[in-house]
Amino acid sequence: MVIAEVSIIPVGTGSPSLSSYIARCIKILHGKNIKFQLTPMGTVIEGEWDEVMTAIRQMQEEMFKHGALRVVTTIKIDERRDKQSSMQDKLNSVKSKI
Amino acid sequence: MVIAEVSIIPVGTGSPSLSSYIARCIKILHGKNIKFQLTPMGTVIEGEWDEVMTAIRQMQEEMFKHGALRVVTTIKIDERRDKQSSMQDKLNSVKSKI
Amino acid sequence: MVIAEVSIIPVGTGSPSLSSYIARCIKILHGKNIKFQLTPMGTVIEGEWDEVMTAIRQMQEEMFKHGALRVVTTIKIDERRDKQSSMQDKLNSVKSKI
Amino acid sequence: MVIAEVSIIPVGTGSPSLSSYIARCIKILHGKNIKFQLTPMGTVIEGEWDEVMTAIRQMQEEMFKHGALRVVTTIKIDERRDKQSSMQDKLNSVKSKI
Repeated sequence: MVIAEVSIIPVGTGSPSLSSYIARCIKILHGKNIKFQLTPMGTVIEGEWDEVMTAIRQMQEEMFKHGALRVVTTIKIDERRDKQSSMQDKLNSVKSKI
Repeated sequence: MVIAEVSIIPVGTGSPSLSSYIARCIKILHGKNIKFQLTPMGTVIEGEWDEVMTAIRQMQEEMFKHGALRVVTTIKIDERRDKQSSMQDKLNSVKSKI
Repeated sequence: MVIAEVSIIPVGTGSPSLSSYIARCIKILHGKNIKFQLTPMGTVIEGEWDEVMTAIRQMQEEMFKHGALRVVTTIKIDERRDKQSSMQDKLNSVKSKI
Repeated sequence: MVIAEVSIIPVGTGSPSLSSYIARCIKILHGKNIKFQLTPMGTVIEGEWDEVMTAIRQMQEEMFKHGALRVVTTIKIDERRDKQSSMQDKLNSVKSKI
């Protein structure tokens, strides 16, 4: 299992607002059986590598379907093999130490 | 005002766990009058450019104080001048469109 | 075709040096028929989405094979559909405007 | 000394081309006594923290001066204190191990 944060920016859309694009991405995740969390700067997704990457590919494709000519996508993947660690586990672990 | 997401990785610490390091970073933010939100993949901070960058510099310095020999820090900054948009505004804007 | 930059950090390795890990990643790319460029902060790869993502997955897997327990990978993907633009085209385009 | 990679995206400009914006950023670096390298996906800068961050702030400001209403900037900083390591040292170290 991996935890990935994704941020997708359609370039040259003509408007500084991106929320309608992001909403389309989130709708794609809603249609899947995948855990995710929207943050002010991206979307954190939890799942198997292939599952997560397929979702991200679809989100990026959605930008082109809705008029983007260029898309810049940033993905940060955290994969840990010494123990299972969910999105919530990671938050809990930090909070317990503050 | 800018919204920034920061992720700080001390390299070569000898342990795959990073939560004690992240907790130290969060304590630095607690000591300031700055808005922030911990996510499973980073910390989102809201404030003036200088204020945010000073906080990040201190967080990174804290890693060295506690034994790190190398630190890799990723910062993503979103600055908008057509309108004020807080962390919460950004979330609300996306959610209203889903 | 996409252009992707990847940066892979094995976490908790016990040494601040990462070059032997990065060299292993580059060897994986050498074994493929894929265009890439090593930079001081990452590796830029040019190819089809699946081809690029398969390479990155193998690079990340290589870190685990060589002892990493946790790996943080950052990928930035630039995909443009209004025209073909290679790594070299992008550099040339900027340089012609300086 | 730190090594930083910066990537600056003006959002909503109306054109998928970013090279004229990037050229403006590079001109700012040319006007300084700072080492940098243009890559297909960003610009790598070498210098003291304050020096690097001041340059990045000016580059971002330049985007607003030339019409951008929103700018998303990604900065990755690599700071090492066990030894001095320049951009070129990093490349050499990896290449010697391939």
